Amino acid sequence: MLTSFFDITKSILPFDENAANQARVRQDQLTKPQGSLGRLEDLSIQLAGITGNPLPRIDRPGIFVFAADHGVAARGVSAYPSEVTAQMVWNYARGGAVINVLAQQIGAQLAVADVGVSSVLPEDLGIVHRKIRLGTADWTQGPAMTRDEAMRAIQTGIDIFDASEADLAIIGEMGIGNTTTAAALSAALTGLSPSDLVGRGTGVDDAGLARKLAAIESGLARMPKTSDPLEILSEIGGLEIGAMAGVALAAARRRVPILLDGFISTTAGLLATAIAPAVRDYLLASHRSPEPGHARLLTQLELTPLLDLGMRLGEGSGAALATPLVQAAAAVLRDVATFEQAGVSDRE
Amino acid sequence: MLTSFFDITKSILPFDENAANQARVRQDQLTKPQGSLGRLEDLSIQLAGITGNPLPRIDRPGIFVFAADHGVAARGVSAYPSEVTAQMVWNYARGGAVINVLAQQIGAQLAVADVGVSSVLPEDLGIVHRKIRLGTADWTQGPAMTRDEAMRAIQTGIDIFDASEADLAIIGEMGIGNTTTAAALSAALTGLSPSDLVGRGTGVDDAGLARKLAAIESGLARMPKTSDPLEILSEIGGLEIGAMAGVALAAARRRVPILLDGFISTTAGLLATAIAPAVRDYLLASHRSPEPGHARLLTQLELTPLLDLGMRLGEGSGAALATPLVQAAAAVLRDVATFEQAGVSDRE
Repeated sequence: MLTSFFDITKSILPFDENAANQARVRQDQLTKPQGSLGRLEDLSIQLAGITGNPLPRIDRPGIFVFAADHGVAARGVSAYPSEVTAQMVWNYARGGAVINVLAQQIGAQLAVADVGVSSVLPEDLGIVHRKIRLGTADWTQGPAMTRDEAMRAIQTGIDIFDASEADLAIIGEMGIGNTTTAAALSAALTGLSPSDLVGRGTGVDDAGLARKLAAIESGLARMPKTSDPLEILSEIGGLEIGAMAGVALAAARRRVPILLDGFISTTAGLLATAIAPAVRDYLLASHRSPEPGHARLLTQLELTPLLDLGMRLGEGSGAALATPLVQAAAAVLRDVATFEQAGVSDRE
Repeated sequence: MLTSFFDITKSILPFDENAANQARVRQDQLTKPQGSLGRLEDLSIQLAGITGNPLPRIDRPGIFVFAADHGVAARGVSAYPSEVTAQMVWNYARGGAVINVLAQQIGAQLAVADVGVSSVLPEDLGIVHRKIRLGTADWTQGPAMTRDEAMRAIQTGIDIFDASEADLAIIGEMGIGNTTTAAALSAALTGLSPSDLVGRGTGVDDAGLARKLAAIESGLARMPKTSDPLEILSEIGGLEIGAMAGVALAAARRRVPILLDGFISTTAGLLATAIAPAVRDYLLASHRSPEPGHARLLTQLELTPLLDLGMRLGEGSGAALATPLVQAAAAVLRDVATFEQAGVSDRE
């Protein structure tokens, strides 16, 4: 497992400037005023550089949703009880959740994996069973998990992505308490202040928000000072964040664009770049959530979101919604006629 | 024809508050934190009120692109020669333009109609032939068209929409010079200052921008002061803007949401509301273009766009790109399980 993990960090190729330049030249020849598709043009050029294909296609979007519980939830940091993590996994398995409906809308494969739900789920529940432990330990009191468990979380994401044929990787999550974990993890990775990264998550009140901030500050005070991303992950968690980072690493290795969702998904993108900085150029931001930490992390990663619709659900929902825009960017670059092909006059 | 036109303005039903309220209640029962889908929730409620169906579906988006020329183009107000209008109609007929590719991506029916291209197009060109005249007259010198022609432009849009089975109406256009016409038309309809409504369109330089503003000011100074929308349309044009307004009127009569595109499409939406104020509640804004007049008109109509990607192409392209968001909003409202159905605990 160790070999595989270190292999991947060394085998991610840089962004293909040559393919991107070919795409840029072609965009200016297509039958439309130059630049008139705005961000869609930039996005198509980015897709060319990511995939190494000057005429990229996105035909098989894959949504990877990881579920896990968080010991820190016992500190009253969420508006919902921990049982909701498992209940929502049942909901995914039965096709009743928002991400099921959005996956169907965009024709995406949806893989839901249990990497750390705190109750035992039946084996015949139609999900991917890769439980590493029954939720993390409360990281305000001690490490969330062992270093080996953190490695296994990342490896699980790598394995699940590698087993897929996705040509766009959407990373999403479910885990009651995980905005608190994501805030602590991203504070430890970036040095940003917890108060800049904490927010209301699924909707805590002022007292809940104060408990979140106190938990994050005590967790950060407790843990050893380190810049080792694996140690930070094992100290704080979560298991689902590690698995999402694994998907990002494996996707980057296969030159597949990674479409981030909200705050927790973006924290996983940040973790993946801390492990392998080359991942950065494979990341796309689907949307900006009202969770205040999300905008901070997007700035940190120098990513500009495609959508800004006040969405804060997680599950990969914002990324699923933005997927048709990514597909459209590729299709326009590939299929629109040039001025020459169409016999249309260019500017006077 | 007159009968049909006046009939329509009287037969548009108000927004269905009852259906919208049912949708609002249902949104709060779905398995997600209340409000966590942000604008997507508001949009689903709007779709319920527009369609009169508390569980709306958008299955058959229709894109209606109208092409026409503008006499004012002779004043050097565009970066492209007038011939490009006809050339782009050929490009649409052959499937080579951006809107063809986007229509295919979203599975939409695309109808391209010539309502006033300044050259004769071959009858066997696979478009809808409804040419009213060979382009408008230069409205800086006199009326763009007769009142009867303005009526016929609107009626053409009504007829083409009525012949379709669209359950979402996208209105788009092609017409060299039409940002100048749209600025003059919207200034006449709203009283806003031409300098607030003029912009670079497909990309004119500073001198071109000054010529646009001068043309608009002289056109407005020439025409009689009136608040009659039909008279304003006949004074300024364009033929494609009248036809798009006709689609909006007919769509509202059939309780079909109208997804506006950019500045010119939104000017048509404004014209339709000037003819029949009840149309307003059937309008949705797909995106905000960098053309400065667009943001002004969206404010005037109290519409908030879904996308803001720096797109300024027209052809209905921004609306086509936003269509999957509208479909997703309806699908989530209809298909996501409730807390009760899924056995998921609501907030503590």
